[in-house]
Amino acid sequence: MQLLNETLKNITTLDKTSMDQAKLHIDHLFKPLGSLGRLEELAVQLAGITKNPFPSVHNKAIIVMSADHGVYEEGVAPDPQIITALQTPNFAKGLTGVCALAKQAHADVVIVDIGIATDIEEPKVIHKKIRYGTSNMAKGPAMTREEAIKSLEIGIEIVNNQIENGKNLIGTGEMGIGNTTPSTAIFSVIGNIDPEEIVGVGAGLPTEKLKHKAAIIKRAIEINQPNPKDGIDILSKVGGFEIGGMAGTMLGAAAKRIPVVVDGFISTAAALIAIAIEPKVKNFLIASHHTAERGGMIAMELLGLQPMFDMGLRLGEGTGAALAFNFIEASTFMVKEMGKR
Amino acid sequence: MQLLNETLKNITTLDKTSMDQAKLHIDHLFKPLGSLGRLEELAVQLAGITKNPFPSVHNKAIIVMSADHGVYEEGVAPDPQIITALQTPNFAKGLTGVCALAKQAHADVVIVDIGIATDIEEPKVIHKKIRYGTSNMAKGPAMTREEAIKSLEIGIEIVNNQIENGKNLIGTGEMGIGNTTPSTAIFSVIGNIDPEEIVGVGAGLPTEKLKHKAAIIKRAIEINQPNPKDGIDILSKVGGFEIGGMAGTMLGAAAKRIPVVVDGFISTAAALIAIAIEPKVKNFLIASHHTAERGGMIAMELLGLQPMFDMGLRLGEGTGAALAFNFIEASTFMVKEMGKR
Repeated sequence: MQLLNETLKNITTLDKTSMDQAKLHIDHLFKPLGSLGRLEELAVQLAGITKNPFPSVHNKAIIVMSADHGVYEEGVAPDPQIITALQTPNFAKGLTGVCALAKQAHADVVIVDIGIATDIEEPKVIHKKIRYGTSNMAKGPAMTREEAIKSLEIGIEIVNNQIENGKNLIGTGEMGIGNTTPSTAIFSVIGNIDPEEIVGVGAGLPTEKLKHKAAIIKRAIEINQPNPKDGIDILSKVGGFEIGGMAGTMLGAAAKRIPVVVDGFISTAAALIAIAIEPKVKNFLIASHHTAERGGMIAMELLGLQPMFDMGLRLGEGTGAALAFNFIEASTFMVKEMGKR
Repeated sequence: MQLLNETLKNITTLDKTSMDQAKLHIDHLFKPLGSLGRLEELAVQLAGITKNPFPSVHNKAIIVMSADHGVYEEGVAPDPQIITALQTPNFAKGLTGVCALAKQAHADVVIVDIGIATDIEEPKVIHKKIRYGTSNMAKGPAMTREEAIKSLEIGIEIVNNQIENGKNLIGTGEMGIGNTTPSTAIFSVIGNIDPEEIVGVGAGLPTEKLKHKAAIIKRAIEINQPNPKDGIDILSKVGGFEIGGMAGTMLGAAAKRIPVVVDGFISTAAALIAIAIEPKVKNFLIASHHTAERGGMIAMELLGLQPMFDMGLRLGEGTGAALAFNFIEASTFMVKEMGKR
């Protein structure tokens, strides 16, 4: 709890002076005023985040949190649960989608076992297992409040290590069979939305099972009665270990004034948990893309950030964050490379 | 005319065999089917373009065509015409917007004087001046049919040189004060649209002058009566030298089976000219972004391609193409780096 509390204390506002300096500089570059649109907004936000009108974001990492979900036993996901354990070592080996896109973007991928249901032997996976998967939220809380705090603190610890090693741009990713179910529950609680309105097929659930998935989420919320104002309460009752780890990553990066990129559906749920815990973290978040998962648009509206692109991605893992790294970096090149009137 | 005719003969269809091989490969990668959305479509298109299921696009160039417009004298642009001549050397020096974004994307920028109203002394600018700007299209044809063909052939020649030097991904960019006016005329002719419906402020024309700009475009179309079925006729009567150069770049790249990226408003007009000349060129084009220029959406609908992102860009120069290079390259990393089931 100490690490979390210290971290939350260090999350403040954007630095207005650096933002003004960046804006003035950008307005004098060789181009019509405002003609580089969102790149200009990004550059100003980065200045505010880093307290530097000429920041660098070349040293990039995507932190992937991997965990399993007790609610899997309710039949809410099409794939065998063991896929989480089988796929996790592939992140260490560079074989997953996010690894391929991160390589293009010259970013590292860091993979963390924060609660996979099986032991993982691959040595490059960071072992931070809280427990062998959450409990079934349709029958009771997914985890204890202490475990929720632990998941947040693991995220903070991992991102702190990355930042100490020089990383200046962080993306959030995940792996976890069944994790659109807790994510949808989080959107339902925070947005006070009927799960039926936002539930989607995830990795390929047959559409005839969508009603069942929505019913399970509804039951989980009814049984657990999460407090929509208490991010840790929501996380513990209807969340997941990887979602807590991602929320912690966001809080930790914000506390160190490092920009942190929201990926897709699961990452957006984590962002909403982080914001529920400390609203100022939102200043430090950058939305990457519209996920193709049904409900993604509503989720992004709840988050209140404007994604940069819609490439029809619905893989998660941090793939959208990896693509977005290029645009974020491009905004810093605009600031540093363009000539001035 | 010989170079143009030979080029057109070599523009054929996408290679179905390579596309099928790419699709089969992608469907067996470590991810749910179709979950990388547009990246998968891009990878399949690239396979069809290059006749190779595992193509490379690492050797990138943006070809920027720079020229002036006789119609400038009608008061259709907010900036002094000399800006074209003053800004062009900045492309050679790496100081423009597209140069900054190209540097991030590890792409070269090639700058061509294809018809600037002033002599350019910067040695790194490729000198292919057809004439000191087009004629005023509100009074007669912007150029002769021979000049239109010459502009296309300059584009072909420049892109052929780049491809001979190993470039395997081409973007199209431009510089030319006043060039949203001929571009809008091209959209009006090809789409049979009233210029008032699509005319925009370009680099910052006061909105009260929009009606005037539309009236000039209308007059140019009425006086010249371009044949909407004849791309060369449209180009010569209401086009521009840089627009011809860009259309030639697209035709030349397509003939050599090299993917070529459409940038913003002007580049979309050039793409429509290229397609009017040889419809099969469309197979080889990749749309990058929605321009923020008014009429951009209608222009993109006329083109019939789906852009990847909307970053609110309205600078032109090839800036959107430079950003898109990252996504196109990412699709090749997906194909080559991801593990297979």
